[in-house]
Order: sequence, then C-alpha cells, then structure tokens
Amino acid sequence: MNLILLHDNDFIDQKRAQLRGRRFEHIQNIQRATSGDELRVGKLNGLHGTGTIVSLDSQELEMEVQLDQSPPDPLPVTLLLALPRPKMLKRILQSVSSLGVKKIYLINSYRVDKSFWGSPLLQPENLNEHLILGLEQARDTVLPEITLCPRFKPFVEDELTKIAKGTATYVAHPVAAAPCPHNLNKPTTLAIGPEGGFIPYEVEKLQSCGFIPISLGERILRVETAVPVLLSRFTP
Amino acid sequence: MNLILLHDNDFIDQKRAQLRGRRFEHIQNIQRATSGDELRVGKLNGLHGTGTIVSLDSQELEMEVQLDQSPPDPLPVTLLLALPRPKMLKRILQSVSSLGVKKIYLINSYRVDKSFWGSPLLQPENLNEHLILGLEQARDTVLPEITLCPRFKPFVEDELTKIAKGTATYVAHPVAAAPCPHNLNKPTTLAIGPEGGFIPYEVEKLQSCGFIPISLGERILRVETAVPVLLSRFTP
Repeated sequence: MNLILLHDNDFIDQKRAQLRGRRFEHIQNIQRATSGDELRVGKLNGLHGTGTIVSLDSQELEMEVQLDQSPPDPLPVTLLLALPRPKMLKRILQSVSSLGVKKIYLINSYRVDKSFWGSPLLQPENLNEHLILGLEQARDTVLPEITLCPRFKPFVEDELTKIAKGTATYVAHPVAAAPCPHNLNKPTTLAIGPEGGFIPYEVEKLQSCGFIPISLGERILRVETAVPVLLSRFTP
Repeated sequence: MNLILLHDNDFIDQKRAQLRGRRFEHIQNIQRATSGDELRVGKLNGLHGTGTIVSLDSQELEMEVQLDQSPPDPLPVTLLLALPRPKMLKRILQSVSSLGVKKIYLINSYRVDKSFWGSPLLQPENLNEHLILGLEQARDTVLPEITLCPRFKPFVEDELTKIAKGTATYVAHPVAAAPCPHNLNKPTTLAIGPEGGFIPYEVEKLQSCGFIPISLGERILRVETAVPVLLSRFTP
C-alpha cells in the first residue's frame, strides 16, 4: 500500500478523514505511523497529496488531508480480456490496475470455462476490491471500469466497433505472423485470449473488426505473464 | 503444459521413453491422448520434436520419440533478483523461465526478510520444479541456472563485475531519472530489488559497478508485475 486511498464516506468534513479497518491497520502495523506523521493519501477518482495524523487510538485514526496533485497518467489501453480463472483474475486485476489500464472488458471465448461466469468474484464490489489494491500499489486514484460481456458474438458484432473507434486494434495470438510492436504510446484496444488462446473463429471475428493479430514470439506464455508483458509495450 | 519435457531417466532406449505420474496424467486427463497420437515433446537441455504414443494403460505410457528442432532463443538477460517471499518466488520463477531467462541470481537486500533464506523452496530440486513448469509452458527445454547469493556486499564486490562483463547493466529503481529503454536486444544484466526497492546504499554499490538506474514511470509496481514488464523490453 503505497497510497492510502480515501473514499467519500471516510471524510467527516472537507479536510478531515477518519479510518478504521484494513487501511487503519496498515498505517498502524506496517507503516507504524503515529500522531503528527504525514502519509501519502489520495481520494478515489480524485487528487492525491498528504494526510497528517491528528489523532490515533487502538481502533481508528483521524487525519487532516491536503490534496493537490494529479494521479499518474493512465495507460492508453482498453483491454479486452477473455475471462480468466477466478484465482488468476484477482492477480491480473491488481496488476492491470497498477499498470494504469482504465477500461477493461471481461469477455467470453470458447476456451473460457462456463463456471467462471458464476464466480462471486464477478460482483462489482469484489472486482473493485482487487482493482483498488492495484491503485494503492501504484499510487493511482482513478478506479478502472469493468464491463462483463458473457456472450462473444453479440459483443463483437454490436459493441466492439464503438468501443475501439479511433484506436489501434490488436489481438494477441501466439501463432500470429507479426511481432507485437515496441514503444506504443497511442490509444489502443488490445484483446487477450484465454489459456490456449482464442479459437480461429474468434480471431477471424476480431479481424473483421480490424484487429491485427500480434505475437510475442515462439514462447507460449500464461495469461498472467502475457498481460504485463503486452502492457509493457505501452508503459513509459 | 505445452511441451512434455523428458528427462534422461525417462528413456528406456535412444528412441523410446516411458512416463508415469504428473506428465502421464496430464497427457491422459487433459490432452486426452491415446495410442497413435503425436505429442509435442522435448528433452531437458536438448532438442524438441514429437512423441508418438505406442502403448498406454492406466498407469503409464510409452512413446517413440523424434527430436529434431531447436528450443526457442533464450532472452539475453542475466537477472539479479532480490529474494522475494516464497509464494511469490514460485510464480516469478515460472514466469521468468517461460520468458527465456537462463541465468538468475537470487540476491540479498536490506528489505529481504531474513526468514526467506530458510525456505525449503530454495532447495535446488524445488526451484527446478517451478523453472520446469515455465519451460513446459513456453515449449523450451533449457533449464535456467539459479545461484543463491545470501550476502549482498561480497556478491557485489567480488562477483558482480565478472558476471556482468560485456553486458549492459541496469538496476530497476522506481525513483530513477531515466525511463527503462524499449526494444533492448543486447546482452544485459538487470537487477530488480525487493518490494519497497533497494536502499540507497545498495543502489550506490550497484552504480559503482556500472549499473544505470532505470524506472518504469511514476507507478510503483509489485515485483511480480515489474519482472515481466521489464523483461518485455527484451522479448521479440
């Protein structure tokens, strides 16, 4: 937790916030902060700055908050990700959020196990929990938006053109002829398949929307590894 | 498991191998292969090719092996990694191995918890288990070498110059002025610190050996995310 992220309901007035629970425990037990200490704080979907602890007991703390800095730039990537296994999704959400992706579409694919769509992790509050861990890690404040798209064909046919409008469009496909370019810093929509990859029909559907298949070479990577490797091509 | 990796003692003669246990179960239950099927196989530290199943029962299978292809190119990176927490180390070893790193030095740092050095995971057979999962994933056969360096100062003063000789040298350091270059494809020695980063003394010691501090921008990433993001700058 490199940033204490404050929510609207943490504020008792415009300048003061009260914390209990997970963040309070982190400040007390990991940061070992005491009264008078300045912490790096941010407001969810707002600015960051410093929080000065004005009081603290065994249950909660109160801080005076000064917010005057912008969050780091977002990554110019809209991510279409075939829904991964829940345990892996948690880690991927954290890493994607820490890397600055702000729009995530979790999409279906032939190789996505149907049971994954029934996971309680897909409740918005549970998804947000993992996105917030990524923001706290990266000192970001802007919560990514996740859209669930449990039907591949209608998503591609009815929504994708609108989503991808005005962006470069790539689909990661291990057998693609073209290598993934380096040092991309233009708005991009990037599709990443499930373990085992998109099936040819799905790649063709994406290609018909203008998506260019790109690969990371001969090596087949786990989705969990491929995601940060691909996003690295967009980071500063 | 995108490649069945065969060890010397799987071979009953030059062309035939017998499998039981984990790989046998994967072939039977996941790949659902039967007699006559061709599988992608490789020999540890050797070539790959195909294995044709000649017999199979509920306990084991026998295959005829034809090895005639080279493994994918290694990544030109020697990795110095501050020893991560064991649970994270397992995943990092898999991802680093799948990305093609062949030389890994697990080094000490002020922020490495001393207890990590006592983990049973650091036994060579346990480390190799996770490296092999990475090779099977990426269809590689060449086992990376890991060296444990539990003392930072003697490692940097007595060994590092020899290890890094003739390579570009970088240390990932979140507060560094220079961004990590893109599209590096030259032999490089890359040092990555623990969660929280190397302390200034350690960065200075590395700088005195010619290491250039580089950063990935304002965002602080978990080591698990930073490793594939950094290695992506070297992948095709």
